[in-house]
Amino acid sequence: MIEAPHLPADDWPRIEPGWVWLCGAGPGDPGLLTLHALSALRQADVIVYDALLDRRILDWRASGTETIIAGKRGGKPSALQRDITLHLLELAQARKRVLRHSGGAPIHIGVPFRIVPGITAGGGGLAYAGIPVTHRDVNQSVAFVTGHDQTGEAPNAVNWEALAQGAQVIVVYMGMKHLDTIAQRLIAGGRDPADPVCVVSSATNADERIVETRLDRAFSDVSEAGLTPPAVICIGRAVLMRQALDWQALARGEAPRYLDPLQRGRPAEISRRQRGAAD
Amino acid sequence: MIEAPHLPADDWPRIEPGWVWLCGAGPGDPGLLTLHALSALRQADVIVYDALLDRRILDWRASGTETIIAGKRGGKPSALQRDITLHLLELAQARKRVLRHSGGAPIHIGVPFRIVPGITAGGGGLAYAGIPVTHRDVNQSVAFVTGHDQTGEAPNAVNWEALAQGAQVIVVYMGMKHLDTIAQRLIAGGRDPADPVCVVSSATNADERIVETRLDRAFSDVSEAGLTPPAVICIGRAVLMRQALDWQALARGEAPRYLDPLQRGRPAEISRRQRGAAD
Repeated sequence: MIEAPHLPADDWPRIEPGWVWLCGAGPGDPGLLTLHALSALRQADVIVYDALLDRRILDWRASGTETIIAGKRGGKPSALQRDITLHLLELAQARKRVLRHSGGAPIHIGVPFRIVPGITAGGGGLAYAGIPVTHRDVNQSVAFVTGHDQTGEAPNAVNWEALAQGAQVIVVYMGMKHLDTIAQRLIAGGRDPADPVCVVSSATNADERIVETRLDRAFSDVSEAGLTPPAVICIGRAVLMRQALDWQALARGEAPRYLDPLQRGRPAEISRRQRGAAD
Repeated sequence: MIEAPHLPADDWPRIEPGWVWLCGAGPGDPGLLTLHALSALRQADVIVYDALLDRRILDWRASGTETIIAGKRGGKPSALQRDITLHLLELAQARKRVLRHSGGAPIHIGVPFRIVPGITAGGGGLAYAGIPVTHRDVNQSVAFVTGHDQTGEAPNAVNWEALAQGAQVIVVYMGMKHLDTIAQRLIAGGRDPADPVCVVSSATNADERIVETRLDRAFSDVSEAGLTPPAVICIGRAVLMRQALDWQALARGEAPRYLDPLQRGRPAEISRRQRGAAD
């Protein structure tokens, strides 16, 4: 058992009564929680959490802390989001120390608050699949896009044709339903139909599933595999990094498929030493 | 003093001897470290860290843990990155438990490894400035872009004109030097010269500095303010969210400047209750 250290006393912020902390909970794996979020779990009087939150995270709360489920799942957040916001407001006005875990309402709710950013499903989830999209040595531009608009319908608010040229890597949230349209519009914008695609459902969780495909076949391959939301879709050559960096497969004893997926050439010293080590 | 909880015993992963963990350290605030990264700090035999890492994070390591500084600062990573990678390889071949903190080498280094994603300077750093760029309720598309290429020179690998149309919000890393060129190319691509811009240097750190400006004046305003790297530049209407969500200013007792910066209309119930509370 690993004992977590005590954290520095002086600059560790407190939740004051009547305050709301809006914490990102990360994509799933409880180990991706931040220390601020953990600290908030231990201090809160009441925790308002989403349906998708891993219950092990709630186990870390102080004993006696109230928990309220207020989840949004799938596509239609707006009305529900307003109810949650009003609930947070009421709790804070009752002088509770309130923790809103995951999701969060990015509007001013009329009471003092703090934003605690979390690991994103795009960045963190894809890193678990061996695709470090936010690493600046891998690519110079990555776009994170929602695959449908606030109504849950077609992704018309996004200029997919421009994005096809503007971003080396495109990461789509909530894009399963409209993946055929999205792929067609990206190809119409000049994106290579053979562009590598990786779809990760339940990223970082025990039921994580991963499909590798290409842009023009993504929709049919994902449908055939039976992948279900929530899923993150990654489009672009950074997907190839997975051939070398799929550390979850390596941990299971599999060999990397290819050591230089982006064809950059590997440091000669490393090749030499590896050969030496293998001799 | 807040006591961090003990973490679950069974599924808390161990660094095995001869393994390297590549951990993102976050933008600065030690509270933005993940639990996996904290756990790794306590287990490692040797920690290879960047010059920019907050030293309070190193204080959380187990006693006797070796630390090695291997920082890259500023623009020229390549040669140094190779040296760091070779060093990691040597340490792992000597059967050490190796933690590479921040940066990390996203290449297969010939030894078993794990990737632990961290909070990004873009997402996390801007959240501290009150701009929740990665929140899907705020905008449907956000692009993260490096402002210069691997040589440290002009940002020619990015199609800024396409990006101007493809992403509602554009977040630029390492873009201070070329901000004038970047702004000109975005405007040439059809971006509004009055598009709101926020530049945050040393995001989440004690010496954090923030400048709000607009696209056509960004370079001169930032130069005049004397902001220095590392800095994150955010371009787009999401910057306006800061008028309501600048929680660091609220914590200092300042009032929000404007409650509905994106002009979406606020829930009537909240306005009514706030009036009630103020009466």
